[in-house]
Order: sequence, then structure tokens, then C-alpha cells
Amino acid sequence: MKTDLNLLKQMDFLIEIDKVKSIYRKSKTYSGEKYENDAEHSWHICMMAMVLAPHANEPIDVFKVIKMLLIHDIVEIDAGDTFLYAEHREDIFEKEKLAAERIFGLLPDDQKNEFFELWLEFEEKKTSEALFAGSIDRLQPMLSNCLNQGTTWNENGVKRKQVFDKNKVIDKGSKLLWKYAQDSLNQMIIQGILKD
Amino acid sequence: MKTDLNLLKQMDFLIEIDKVKSIYRKSKTYSGEKYENDAEHSWHICMMAMVLAPHANEPIDVFKVIKMLLIHDIVEIDAGDTFLYAEHREDIFEKEKLAAERIFGLLPDDQKNEFFELWLEFEEKKTSEALFAGSIDRLQPMLSNCLNQGTTWNENGVKRKQVFDKNKVIDKGSKLLWKYAQDSLNQMIIQGILKD
Repeated sequence: MKTDLNLLKQMDFLIEIDKVKSIYRKSKTYSGEKYENDAEHSWHICMMAMVLAPHANEPIDVFKVIKMLLIHDIVEIDAGDTFLYAEHREDIFEKEKLAAERIFGLLPDDQKNEFFELWLEFEEKKTSEALFAGSIDRLQPMLSNCLNQGTTWNENGVKRKQVFDKNKVIDKGSKLLWKYAQDSLNQMIIQGILKD
Repeated sequence: MKTDLNLLKQMDFLIEIDKVKSIYRKSKTYSGEKYENDAEHSWHICMMAMVLAPHANEPIDVFKVIKMLLIHDIVEIDAGDTFLYAEHREDIFEKEKLAAERIFGLLPDDQKNEFFELWLEFEEKKTSEALFAGSIDRLQPMLSNCLNQGTTWNENGVKRKQVFDKNKVIDKGSKLLWKYAQDSLNQMIIQGILKD
């Protein structure tokens, strides 16, 4: 009986999070064909984390990283997507925390607590897993711009210094990936796509 | 030097698989707003597997299940999506195997072998992880039909017996989930949405 009640809560949650597929981002798919949504982005960064895990600065629990990345954008169902280069990003945390409480709160208590803690750990960026997950979350949309002529940068007037400032945290999760990212960005500067 | 060569191969793979976001399925998102693509579907079933793992018939390695589900549809970049209720599904395996060899073959050998084995294990449905992953892969689009008036069934003339025949394998991964699925399907029969 207890199991069945849990199942109904779990299904309510799993139906609710379908909405993640309709939260559109400012970045496009690598082909440039369409704007990407949070579900597509989340799948892609899970694949990236799994494949690039050997390049993390410190030993990491890869499953924990993937769990963080699977759930990290679910809060945007209530809080919306906030553009990386937007001003006034300060009040996002409180909005997203309320969202985490409501949406993870649909689950049975043990899973609610696990997901809330994973979300908070990702946000706080203190553990090696959170730092690596954060690197991947930045690298994926940055590469999108390198592969489709800087669409997001152009459409939103984003300049070279902003891109380097926002993406240098990639270094905290993986020095090798930050080196790769810098090489890619330098190519964009040479091609005149990323400007001062 | 070896690491850098590996990284270039890994990035080639991670850029190639962006195409998964453009492989559309016959089923819609739960809101019925749009057809779903393989990346959205893959993210959703990973979430379902993580949340519903306690209901598996046998003890499972949840991380292994999630790895299988993350990669299982990548082969459709070359082989295309084959409708669950299509006739002539026999030659899919060979087409998908060639796709697995090409796409996973972009990776360094150790990762290529790991992903190929995971893909094969999922396809063969012999281990408890593959059976549970298979249950979740069926449950997710089945629920889509229960939540949006049987769109896929209606659009493709799919009948009650076909739905039960194709989805009863959910039982092999989780008896509880198959009970939940049958209850949901019976509601669709009562409402006249799933017909003989």
C-alpha cells in the first residue's frame, strides 16, 4: 500500500517535469537549426559529463554528476530560464529554491530530500562533482556559439570579455577543458565572430 | 599528448550526437503541444528510471540503467526512428549495429567498447538492468498517449490488442509498473480512446 502511494507521487512528479521540454534557451542546437530546450540541453550535458569525466581536475563520482545534471534545470519550470549574460541574476537563487521545494516536493520524502540536496550542491559549487558539472553546463552552450557563428552572442550583443569572464569557471572543474574552450574562443576571435 | 588526442575524438563524438535532438518520434510531449525528439525522450526516461528504480523486479545498478538509456537512441542518427507498431521491424538490428559501430567508433577505444556493450546489452534484454531500462522506454511513450487522448494510436490506427501486446514487456522489468500501465490503459478503453 505504501509503495502504491509512493508510485502515485512519483508519477505526478514525472508528468510535471515533462514541461522541461518546453523551456527554451537562448542557445541553438549545434546545427543552428533551432533553439534548444532544457530537456535537450540536459541530455547533452549528461552525455558530455560521461564522456569527459576522465578530464576532471579531481576524482569524481560520475553518477552523482549525472544525477545533478539530469535535475539541475527542473526548477526552471517555475523560475524560467535566466540568460547567462543577463544583468540582475541575484534574485534567481531564491526563486529557484522555491521552485525546487514545490517540484521536488511532489516526490516521496526520501527522493525529495535527495534531489533537493543534489540541486543545492550543484548551485553551491563547492564539491568536485558540482564543479565538474558546472564546467560541463558552461562548455555545452559555449560550443554551440563556436559551431554556429556566435548566434547567441550576436543576438544579445555579448562581447569577448563577457564570454571569457563567464566561462573561465570551466577551469575549476577541468583545466584541460578550459584550455580546449579557450582555443575554440580564440578561433572565434580570429574569425571576427567574437568581438570586443 | 595522448589525452589531447582522446579529447579531440571525444569532442567529435559529442558534436555528432547533437543530431539526436532532430530525430522526431511518433509520440508527443505530455501536453500534446509538439512531437518529441530522441534527446527529450532520453532525458525523460533517465529521470523516470532514477525515480522508479525502487520498483524494479530485481536489484539493479541504476547508473548502468541510466547509461543505457542515455545512449540507446544515438544509433537512430543513422538508422532513423522506427515506430514501435511498424511492420517489418526485423532488419532494424543490423542497421542499428552498423550505426553503433560508426558513431561509438568516433570515441577512444575504451569508451567505444563500453558504449557498444551497453547498447548491445540494452538490445538483448537479458540482464535485470536491460529489462528495467526496456520497461521505462515503453512506459514513457505509452503514458504520452494516455495523457493526450491517444494521439499516436489515433494517427496510426493502433488498436487495443497491439498496445497490450507491445507494452506487456513492461512486466519483465517491473510488475508494479505494468499494473500501473494496465490501469492507465483500461481507463483509455473506458473513455473510448483505445479501441478494438
